[in-house]
Amino acid sequence: MDTAHEVKAPVTVLEWVGGSADGTLRLLDQTLLPERTQYVDCRNVETLWDAIRRLVVRGAPAIGVAAGYGMVLAGQQAADLPALMADLDRAASYLESSRPTAVNLSWAVRRVLDKARAAAAGPTQGVDGLRRLLLDEAHAIHAEDQALCLAIGRYAEPLVRRCAGVLTHCNAGALATAGIGTATAGLYLAHAAGHRFCVYCDETRPLLQGSRLTAWELMQAGIDAVVITDSMAAHVLRQGRVQMVITGADRIAANGDAANKIGTYSLALAARAHNVPFYVAAPYSTFDLSIADGSEIPIEERGGEEITHGFGRATAPAGVKTYCPAFDVTPANLITAIITDRGVIQPVGEREVRGVIG
Amino acid sequence: MDTAHEVKAPVTVLEWVGGSADGTLRLLDQTLLPERTQYVDCRNVETLWDAIRRLVVRGAPAIGVAAGYGMVLAGQQAADLPALMADLDRAASYLESSRPTAVNLSWAVRRVLDKARAAAAGPTQGVDGLRRLLLDEAHAIHAEDQALCLAIGRYAEPLVRRCAGVLTHCNAGALATAGIGTATAGLYLAHAAGHRFCVYCDETRPLLQGSRLTAWELMQAGIDAVVITDSMAAHVLRQGRVQMVITGADRIAANGDAANKIGTYSLALAARAHNVPFYVAAPYSTFDLSIADGSEIPIEERGGEEITHGFGRATAPAGVKTYCPAFDVTPANLITAIITDRGVIQPVGEREVRGVIG
Repeated sequence: MDTAHEVKAPVTVLEWVGGSADGTLRLLDQTLLPERTQYVDCRNVETLWDAIRRLVVRGAPAIGVAAGYGMVLAGQQAADLPALMADLDRAASYLESSRPTAVNLSWAVRRVLDKARAAAAGPTQGVDGLRRLLLDEAHAIHAEDQALCLAIGRYAEPLVRRCAGVLTHCNAGALATAGIGTATAGLYLAHAAGHRFCVYCDETRPLLQGSRLTAWELMQAGIDAVVITDSMAAHVLRQGRVQMVITGADRIAANGDAANKIGTYSLALAARAHNVPFYVAAPYSTFDLSIADGSEIPIEERGGEEITHGFGRATAPAGVKTYCPAFDVTPANLITAIITDRGVIQPVGEREVRGVIG
Repeated sequence: MDTAHEVKAPVTVLEWVGGSADGTLRLLDQTLLPERTQYVDCRNVETLWDAIRRLVVRGAPAIGVAAGYGMVLAGQQAADLPALMADLDRAASYLESSRPTAVNLSWAVRRVLDKARAAAAGPTQGVDGLRRLLLDEAHAIHAEDQALCLAIGRYAEPLVRRCAGVLTHCNAGALATAGIGTATAGLYLAHAAGHRFCVYCDETRPLLQGSRLTAWELMQAGIDAVVITDSMAAHVLRQGRVQMVITGADRIAANGDAANKIGTYSLALAARAHNVPFYVAAPYSTFDLSIADGSEIPIEERGGEEITHGFGRATAPAGVKTYCPAFDVTPANLITAIITDRGVIQPVGEREVRGVIG
């Protein structure tokens, strides 16, 4: 029996409420998980920018979907078409400035903007028509993201079924997408098909997306989740507890170098040292074929208070210096395969990336 | 000018207050750092056991010194010599049970116990004489630990002087010893001699000894400290920010395999991947030549609440499973050299270990 279509995300990460002219974007506030499940409504682009920046919504694919809807919000004020197009132009650049590393954000706003430009250049349809078109495109991105997750999951599931233990870092789960996640998609499908296994979740300092989000969503689905600190992953690998490592990605260069949450690179080194396959799961929209390799990926640096005040009390001396890169780059040669909605890229190199992604 | 003798630990970690029959062991409560500098007095072995268990005092050398004084506490109750010796026997095993990985603990209590046994077998000296002898031996261990740190520092200092950046994990600092630390000794000496450099401090989850303790004590001494999460170390290494990594150890096997705080192994893998030297600093008392390799070192597992409730709020879903090893083993082949009070072991192998340690 094919159960894949029955596998649902354990929680609604984001949804559009209302029409194109007066609707709002409702976001699950992921900063409050796992203690509270609370939603915030974004009624304008500024609120969404702040929500992306504060990681109310996070995860490259989910940010892309949210930013698509952000363009709808940006189109709600103008009285005429030129003003609307100017608002969209401004909003695209503005939203892109919220977080620099994930390419899906830029990909989504540009997709909606291109659609609007094409329509504006065509037969006159007025601001109301254009607003409906913006919402249609945002909905399309949303629905597509769900389909992309499922497609990734179908490629990943056979790999998961060989494993008694899987290790993941950060959250490339349902909470990072509009669907069943990227790195988690194969886990959800394998579990739904009756395979039982254990998922070691790196807690993922500084913001603990692994313990707060990944462990939480896996538990919702009844999957056996075990939280470890990031520093324990190499020891877990050495003990033979896991047979594969799988993470998401925020941007993948043409040669397959993949930017992902800080700590991914360290994990890939440890996986290689133990000959455990290291997989990256990502939809085509995470690829940035305009850059040759990972050295060109901008790495966001975040405020040091994420390190020094992460747990509700100061965990470092007052006034201490910090260095807080939010991402690192895992070189293609450490990645066993990249699992995409369009197929599995293996080995990972420019020819193979372009062969699958185009 | 030789400034080494002027280099003092930035804080008193532990001290004996009073005489052999009625004195107490005063410990800096390291669980409260860096927010508060507060001392607790241990008046009996049970209180000390609890203090070691709760990491009020921690760090293999400091635990050894504290346990030496613990034997003095154990000798304060008995009315006659046979009862005193029985109390010491019980206390030795009891104190050893507080934490299994660090060998210095066992080394220190056995040293005091052997001294007492030899004295008890010799000319009669009564319980008061024996108590004085216990305290003398504990003081000797204390003073020796300060000297061991300095000796390690003299070997490490030239290595530090070549570096603009150094990376360390956990706290093998003054707070982990009675002196200027093991991994930090060379840092303090190089700094006192005028060399300026930056020390990246892994925060060291779950208990954050790197941010709470190492960064704090380095700052007290005016050394430039930068806190990063453990997951950032590989990225920092890749960026070429550090020219050496140095950590302490809790137990070193005859072949040079070294148990140290969880995360050390991961760090050693990352250092090797970037051809950055990885040094372990430890006194002779950290070596356990009775075991052939690291597979025989017992690895303490601690409660999962250290991961899920580390700092005042829940950071993982209620009821989630955890796995919480407190240490890992770095294989000798990843260690560039072991810097001891008796010389530098390089390359690291059984012949070289036995050549230096005996």
